[in-house]
Amino acid sequence: MSDHMSAGKLLGVGVGPGDPELMTLKAMRALGEADVIAHFAKAGNVSHSRAIVAQHLRAGVIELPLLYPVTTEMPACSNTYRDAIADFYDRAAAKIAARLEAGCTVAVISEGDPMFYGSYMHLHTRLAPRFATEIIAGVTGMSGCWSAAGMPIAQGDDVFTVLPATLPEAELARRLSDADAAVVMKVGRHLPKLRRALEASGRLPRAIYVERGTMSEEKMIPLAAKLDDDAPYFAVVLVPGWEKRP
Amino acid sequence: MSDHMSAGKLLGVGVGPGDPELMTLKAMRALGEADVIAHFAKAGNVSHSRAIVAQHLRAGVIELPLLYPVTTEMPACSNTYRDAIADFYDRAAAKIAARLEAGCTVAVISEGDPMFYGSYMHLHTRLAPRFATEIIAGVTGMSGCWSAAGMPIAQGDDVFTVLPATLPEAELARRLSDADAAVVMKVGRHLPKLRRALEASGRLPRAIYVERGTMSEEKMIPLAAKLDDDAPYFAVVLVPGWEKRP
Repeated sequence: MSDHMSAGKLLGVGVGPGDPELMTLKAMRALGEADVIAHFAKAGNVSHSRAIVAQHLRAGVIELPLLYPVTTEMPACSNTYRDAIADFYDRAAAKIAARLEAGCTVAVISEGDPMFYGSYMHLHTRLAPRFATEIIAGVTGMSGCWSAAGMPIAQGDDVFTVLPATLPEAELARRLSDADAAVVMKVGRHLPKLRRALEASGRLPRAIYVERGTMSEEKMIPLAAKLDDDAPYFAVVLVPGWEKRP
Repeated sequence: MSDHMSAGKLLGVGVGPGDPELMTLKAMRALGEADVIAHFAKAGNVSHSRAIVAQHLRAGVIELPLLYPVTTEMPACSNTYRDAIADFYDRAAAKIAARLEAGCTVAVISEGDPMFYGSYMHLHTRLAPRFATEIIAGVTGMSGCWSAAGMPIAQGDDVFTVLPATLPEAELARRLSDADAAVVMKVGRHLPKLRRALEASGRLPRAIYVERGTMSEEKMIPLAAKLDDDAPYFAVVLVPGWEKRP
């Protein structure tokens, strides 16, 4: 049994969309106070969240990398994938629980905002019933993208929707038609299908393709002007609203 | 005519949801570098964005308050309201243009994120064709709310939607049913209607009412447990998704 009084605290720390200057003062304070910094990465890759905070890591801080066993290689609907991922999160939560039980403050750093499509949430649901937690909100990846594009996204009474590009084509088209403004995530190999859905919903002329918004390798182009369908998994497409803009 | 080479720069600066510690390092730098800090407020009221940055204002910085002539007193669909507001933004943009033409760096501070339902966008569309601009993304009010509530909002392939409570009841219910996760903004006097729409869509049991998320006067309660229908204009209702959470 953990003892809540002497156990440490779990911090879910949003570190923003990529530009290290888009970290909050509160995230900086958490980095200074945490005994352990945990970060997710695909095995063999650099953690994006760690790269964002690299210049602010305290000397001697303990790092706890949490390495995904599998990510996009298997279909996400397969039982094998689901079991492997659930087991991974269980083991990651157990590693963190051991540190918390020893009285450590553990900061799990998350790209963007921890509670908005973030891996941290899988640890939070497992650990929040047993330990004190604090969430430090962050600038989302999508805010980083539309700001870098200098693009008002939604205004007034606009309905704004976030869609995964994994949805079936007809559903993407229906939902794009039904929203004033949208952000489509997880573009990757779904780009040809997404183009067709944007065309069908009349949204292609205002769609903007963004890769690595706010980072040094940022790429940004009107989707209609992008001639190939190459896109990484984390690319997003912005569909700005506010049609009545002056 | 403005001379782009000698004219100043317009900064759209997101200052986050309310807690001054949720400002970014980049917003802090902008406050230090700007010659003029402009902020919106309702005439007779304190500017929320100014209150957030108050402790970081540089001594001797020029402040330019932009005071709304009217806000919620008139129906937003009336021509009188629309004309008054358009005229207000035209005059606000002209005041800022004069400073930019004089070579000043002007930071317009915005609660949350400047390009996400922010007043700054009205200045941006008027001034970006004539002057250099930079947008500094901020933590949105809604991120502040779900983080303060310790509440994962959306995960995996969830569809996430932001709705204004001003929509008709049937449309609110339809859109709430159609989304995995939602945030409803501009709650105010629309709360009784919103409750009915949440009930009709089966979302009432997971709805959380939040006022002033991340601020010292923060209020947070499951909506089903809130016995009155008193709500300020800026209150939000969160409908968390991720139904398959472990």
